[in-house]
Amino acid sequence: MANTSINDFLGAVALRGISLLKASERNQKPDANTIVELCKRLLSSRGNASGLALSFQFWELYEKLDAPAKEALFIAISAEFSANLEDVATVATQYIETQSPEVLKVLSAVAAPKYAELISRLNQTPASTLKIVHMRSDLLRFLRQNPSLKPLDEVFSQVLTSWFNRGFLTLQEINWHSPAILLENVKKYEAVHGIENWNDLARRIQPADRLIYGFFHHNLQDEPLIFVEVALTTKIPDAIAPILEDDRKIIDPNTATTAAFYSISNCQEGLRGIPLGNFLIKQVVEDLKKRHPQLKEFVTLSPIVRFGKWMRDDPELAKPLPTTKEEIDAMSPEASKSLLADAAWFLASEKAADGKPRDPVCRFHIGNGARLERLNWAAHFTGTGPANSFAIMANYKYIIDDIEKNHEAFQTAGTVAVAPPIKKQAAQSQFNKP
Amino acid sequence: MANTSINDFLGAVALRGISLLKASERNQKPDANTIVELCKRLLSSRGNASGLALSFQFWELYEKLDAPAKEALFIAISAEFSANLEDVATVATQYIETQSPEVLKVLSAVAAPKYAELISRLNQTPASTLKIVHMRSDLLRFLRQNPSLKPLDEVFSQVLTSWFNRGFLTLQEINWHSPAILLENVKKYEAVHGIENWNDLARRIQPADRLIYGFFHHNLQDEPLIFVEVALTTKIPDAIAPILEDDRKIIDPNTATTAAFYSISNCQEGLRGIPLGNFLIKQVVEDLKKRHPQLKEFVTLSPIVRFGKWMRDDPELAKPLPTTKEEIDAMSPEASKSLLADAAWFLASEKAADGKPRDPVCRFHIGNGARLERLNWAAHFTGTGPANSFAIMANYKYIIDDIEKNHEAFQTAGTVAVAPPIKKQAAQSQFNKP
Amino acid sequence: MANTSINDFLGAVALRGISLLKASERNQKPDANTIVELCKRLLSSRGNASGLALSFQFWELYEKLDAPAKEALFIAISAEFSANLEDVATVATQYIETQSPEVLKVLSAVAAPKYAELISRLNQTPASTLKIVHMRSDLLRFLRQNPSLKPLDEVFSQVLTSWFNRGFLTLQEINWHSPAILLENVKKYEAVHGIENWNDLARRIQPADRLIYGFFHHNLQDEPLIFVEVALTTKIPDAIAPILEDDRKIIDPNTATTAAFYSISNCQEGLRGIPLGNFLIKQVVEDLKKRHPQLKEFVTLSPIVRFGKWMRDDPELAKPLPTTKEEIDAMSPEASKSLLADAAWFLASEKAADGKPRDPVCRFHIGNGARLERLNWAAHFTGTGPANSFAIMANYKYIIDDIEKNHEAFQTAGTVAVAPPIKKQAAQSQFNKP
Amino acid sequence: MANTSINDFLGAVALRGISLLKASERNQKPDANTIVELCKRLLSSRGNASGLALSFQFWELYEKLDAPAKEALFIAISAEFSANLEDVATVATQYIETQSPEVLKVLSAVAAPKYAELISRLNQTPASTLKIVHMRSDLLRFLRQNPSLKPLDEVFSQVLTSWFNRGFLTLQEINWHSPAILLENVKKYEAVHGIENWNDLARRIQPADRLIYGFFHHNLQDEPLIFVEVALTTKIPDAIAPILEDDRKIIDPNTATTAAFYSISNCQEGLRGIPLGNFLIKQVVEDLKKRHPQLKEFVTLSPIVRFGKWMRDDPELAKPLPTTKEEIDAMSPEASKSLLADAAWFLASEKAADGKPRDPVCRFHIGNGARLERLNWAAHFTGTGPANSFAIMANYKYIIDDIEKNHEAFQTAGTVAVAPPIKKQAAQSQFNKP
Repeated sequence: MANTSINDFLGAVALRGISLLKASERNQKPDANTIVELCKRLLSSRGNASGLALSFQFWELYEKLDAPAKEALFIAISAEFSANLEDVATVATQYIETQSPEVLKVLSAVAAPKYAELISRLNQTPASTLKIVHMRSDLLRFLRQNPSLKPLDEVFSQVLTSWFNRGFLTLQEINWHSPAILLENVKKYEAVHGIENWNDLARRIQPADRLIYGFFHHNLQDEPLIFVEVALTTKIPDAIAPILEDDRKIIDPNTATTAAFYSISNCQEGLRGIPLGNFLIKQVVEDLKKRHPQLKEFVTLSPIVRFGKWMRDDPELAKPLPTTKEEIDAMSPEASKSLLADAAWFLASEKAADGKPRDPVCRFHIGNGARLERLNWAAHFTGTGPANSFAIMANYKYIIDDIEKNHEAFQTAGTVAVAPPIKKQAAQSQFNKP
Repeated sequence: MANTSINDFLGAVALRGISLLKASERNQKPDANTIVELCKRLLSSRGNASGLALSFQFWELYEKLDAPAKEALFIAISAEFSANLEDVATVATQYIETQSPEVLKVLSAVAAPKYAELISRLNQTPASTLKIVHMRSDLLRFLRQNPSLKPLDEVFSQVLTSWFNRGFLTLQEINWHSPAILLENVKKYEAVHGIENWNDLARRIQPADRLIYGFFHHNLQDEPLIFVEVALTTKIPDAIAPILEDDRKIIDPNTATTAAFYSISNCQEGLRGIPLGNFLIKQVVEDLKKRHPQLKEFVTLSPIVRFGKWMRDDPELAKPLPTTKEEIDAMSPEASKSLLADAAWFLASEKAADGKPRDPVCRFHIGNGARLERLNWAAHFTGTGPANSFAIMANYKYIIDDIEKNHEAFQTAGTVAVAPPIKKQAAQSQFNKP
Repeated sequence: MANTSINDFLGAVALRGISLLKASERNQKPDANTIVELCKRLLSSRGNASGLALSFQFWELYEKLDAPAKEALFIAISAEFSANLEDVATVATQYIETQSPEVLKVLSAVAAPKYAELISRLNQTPASTLKIVHMRSDLLRFLRQNPSLKPLDEVFSQVLTSWFNRGFLTLQEINWHSPAILLENVKKYEAVHGIENWNDLARRIQPADRLIYGFFHHNLQDEPLIFVEVALTTKIPDAIAPILEDDRKIIDPNTATTAAFYSISNCQEGLRGIPLGNFLIKQVVEDLKKRHPQLKEFVTLSPIVRFGKWMRDDPELAKPLPTTKEEIDAMSPEASKSLLADAAWFLASEKAADGKPRDPVCRFHIGNGARLERLNWAAHFTGTGPANSFAIMANYKYIIDDIEKNHEAFQTAGTVAVAPPIKKQAAQSQFNKP
Repeated sequence: MANTSINDFLGAVALRGISLLKASERNQKPDANTIVELCKRLLSSRGNASGLALSFQFWELYEKLDAPAKEALFIAISAEFSANLEDVATVATQYIETQSPEVLKVLSAVAAPKYAELISRLNQTPASTLKIVHMRSDLLRFLRQNPSLKPLDEVFSQVLTSWFNRGFLTLQEINWHSPAILLENVKKYEAVHGIENWNDLARRIQPADRLIYGFFHHNLQDEPLIFVEVALTTKIPDAIAPILEDDRKIIDPNTATTAAFYSISNCQEGLRGIPLGNFLIKQVVEDLKKRHPQLKEFVTLSPIVRFGKWMRDDPELAKPLPTTKEEIDAMSPEASKSLLADAAWFLASEKAADGKPRDPVCRFHIGNGARLERLNWAAHFTGTGPANSFAIMANYKYIIDDIEKNHEAFQTAGTVAVAPPIKKQAAQSQFNKP
């Protein structure tokens, strides 16, 4: 059944009898006002009858906008469809007097901006969903300069959280049978250990001991939302190079004891902040256990991304700190031991303003319920590895029976779960002052 | 790729290490409190880590509940997760003083109940979505007795409106190649002209001049949301029997001039109030125009469902009014003409408290932008036809160039679009008093 | 990818520039000569260039033929494309002189009729394959009256054996998710215990302890080639009624110990003689073992179709023999015991001219390597059961370790494998004369 | 429905009770005799019961063979299952005496070797078909050294012709949505203008004016059988470089007037001689006409592969002839004109022993009904272009109304269809001696 063609087709029929923009308006460079007018029409009663046609027109115009025009549009939309502050004040006064549920309902309604309804009405075909994700990605770029856009972004985030709710995600293995366009997206989106070419990609999915899993949404067919790369191994890996090297020995996956998650990449900037990653890892663990019941350990091999800067920014430390393979290789055992102790301290004990680890990768896995298991020296000489972490990498371990307990201790008390050796290392750090 | 099996699988793994209900709690008849506790846990930080397992447990318990237990649960949920009235009052006061956007945001948050988040967290697998639709269907049954459940239902409705947004619906033709389970659902859900058995169903999809189209959601694979039955004809049909009869002459669809929508059925009680029907008809018109460009007219053949009762309830009218085929056949031409005039008046001019037509079918098509085109005498002798409308049926016509205009006139002024002959008939009605 | 539409489309292009029949020839009632001319053209060098168009024309004409015209066509084709007897004689003479492999090759070529090439050239699109199967089904009806058509039929059989080779068959479970059109075919083709309506069909696929498996060919999408109906039970069934009854107790398939094949139906008359059934049962056993490893026994519950007639035709037996339920129920224990003994003798020892069992169902299962396990009294009161076998049914048992041994003993020595009790029963038959 | 898994699974069950090779036989290096024994068993009555298991064993052993062992196996099979020459002589004698159809049938049977039945029995699962194609590819390598294998190869060819009959092929567009494994195969099999890397591949399928079509067989999912690369252009192309270059101007396919087939690659050596290419081009023309009705011309841009050698082998011609771009560029207009005239002569008039063009590409397109349209100077400087054809390329044109006529003239009289300018060029060739 040719669903897509039925759905995505906008025939001559749909465009007749509809109060669209005039041809003159459509051809000239669109401005924010024209588009805001279109949005108002889309939100009006006419929008019910002609939503499909109006939304097509919106996207046609939107895609012609350059960055400043988009910024202007977001500001205009933000202003036009925000809550009316005075209306809110009036109803709030009423509510304080009555405390009635009816007035509460009205209050709740007037206090909310119209952004959500607008976003919904722009989603008239399966193909629109990705456009909306990209639109939020545009919006995010203007946020720092325009704090007033924050409420608009919060509504985008709410709507997308609802649409990309876990029940709407499907886990798929990505492999050599996947459409080439999907693999090309994987190549493009890999953010941790960049995929240089198709040979490099093949090394990560063709061997029987290498897998990629991704989360997908039905409306974004060839676009993974997030994916994780897995190496099946016989021990916890202590460096990235052996995992990615070209002529390594491939093992029979049925002899593997360990699943190592060596790269996790979010693909859609427009889904920033929508929780996907924690679901992903747990579901992949499920699937791997089913396929290979002999697997005993589920660990990551993770970069440490903020340690280097944090050290360099410390005015009390001797400088310069090493940043190249040569410098790192040249370090004395004592110096490397000391750096490892500092890294343990940094991950386990250094907190940002919100009481959570400064390092985002650490924050992610600890927040998921994993524990910091081991630090590996001379593990990460590619890319930003030397600069970011003096080439140190971390293993976070997912112990199924501890996930919930760890997660809750982290959420309620900010406790970072660490293995005993890490605790010992951190204790020896120069930062561990009594 | 075996997506479903990966997604819907809840292995031993997922259930280990999770603070689930004790076996003793699970085996006894579940009570509302136990389930509300589960919901609180699902909404807590633990819910992040163990959402899948907790939601499975919720559904396991929910499905054991009888009607009174469900009612009790809805009341408990409604109370537990409602907005805190005093918090709202406090923030409202603050807002009135400051009128600041930050406080507005807080106000908006505290004024909203937690129901939406709860519903989202119950949707952890593709299979959950249908369960949530059924849960709302349960809720609707208790609404009349428990007006306090209305805010809860409103949130259900908002969440489902977001999830069943047009961009997530796919139009599919339902035919003899569809899975039997889907066709059985069509048989079950047909609400206007009941499908008695598979032969009857076959008559509506096998001939080349009969089609069914439905809207589907990806997570509800074999469950149509709404479907419309179409007859391709050479004139506007004036009775239902010739459309459904067994050994009628089948026409070549390429010679048809008219597409007659003779039955529209909503399938999911739990989606009551979520707009689906208006999208459906317009998209079907699109698809039909593409497949059979020679089609000129798009009309319905619709029952009138409230006319009979309205007439009988009128204390001033002579009684009894006819209710059987015999009585209707026996009527004089003048009497039938008079009844037709009254029917025209009823549909075109009688309004409910909200200013819209009393008849829901009329309200639906007029609201979609159609116009009332013709009334047909002795058209509907099956089912409730004689009792509901003295066997009169209506044709509503979808004139593509007028849809938006009609729709807007209706929305803004309550205007019911009617063809000139209907206007004349209504003018002659006994109800048309100067 | 819209493969089918690309393949099956015969555009204006394909029909231009091709020496097709004239319109006048196409419109008149086609005769055998016209079609034979078309076949000659299809086999000629032009056929290479225009095969698709010529074959479309062939099918267009063929489908207009009535039975006598088809018979005439088969006779004409048979004559036109047979081997040339004199050419064969010439080459045979040459061969006897030379005994050279080159001449052997020529001999092999001239001795073979051109039918195979003709059939191949008629198979130009996926949709043609079913037409060819139906064409052979037509041919089979004329065979008895026209023994000269036998060589043509043998070539049809060879070609279809090649095309429906095991490697081209796929096993599929047929269930409530199958397309309605496929289920309707199952309903139509069930030959043993007729399916009366969709409710009856539902009873055979909806309960968890009832399954249907079929063999399919890629080019015949909704047409099963053969299917077997399976009941999962806790003991070897001894009558058909409890299996098919409406409100029986459904069992959990994981508690079943026995898979009973209670009906096997060949669907395509045109595939008569092409081996399908023996593959089917063994593959279904494989699949069932995988799904339900606890299954211990694989048996049939089979009708006996020739026993009644064989008894009635025996001039020495007392008549009349019972033919109704009442008569069978009224028989004395001794009489029934005696009939069972005769049935055991009939199945185990009575052979047709080819040395194999007279009963075709027995021949099929024994030929597959099963053994005759048990006879059941008062087991088959529906349909032709009473007349064909005095309502006796047989269980044939597939013992995996014995299948090959049984099969080979049967093929080489005509040995019918029977369980010890059957051997005893047969020994007590009146036919067992020393 | 998990067809493949059901079909391709060979469980413990299938292997029990079957007279398989002993473990000792399986582990040692397999020899031809062991495998021939297995084949005999497969062809025996046991093969009926245990065909699946025996064939699995065959493939397991076959895949362990090195080239000499394969050669030995083919020779052994060829001898073991050939027709019995004396039997043939006996029956031939009988036939000469009787000329009866019954004896003819026997003669036809004894004259045919058993190879076809063996091949059929090796095809027990969908996955076997590709193995058989590869097995024939192996066989072809030994043919020249072992002419006695020719009859075996002829039977392979017959069986594969039957299995890869046009009705079993599906045309598919190969594009960026195809599985990566399929695209990798395209990359591997491109034989005319090699695809160097994925970027090069992308250039041939991503732009809207570039397409690849392939023929596929259901049992060889990711393996194209043959594919053709198409450029949509606005004039008949006169060189290959502009078609393949990196930053050329992409045109809107709806403005194209010409479809240029610039590369056709057979993918399966094991299908050598099975007709696929002529079907392919005509069906692609059909599909292109449907998608882009404005297309007017369907031409190839083809290499000339034998011209260079033919010229160099001519003892009467002055040597050396140019073989590099520099030498060709340096030629005088007269010299190039003379070479073009010779090329025209070579393609249009030089015939091999079978009366058909010496050049295989010419033979293919002319045999398909195309005509030689134009020769292009300095058109093919990559690969073997300069050496094979002094960089000349040919356009063959498919004129729909002439295809059948051209094809037939070629088949019956060896006539090569050429455009008038080609005729003129050929007449001016030095080879055109009166």
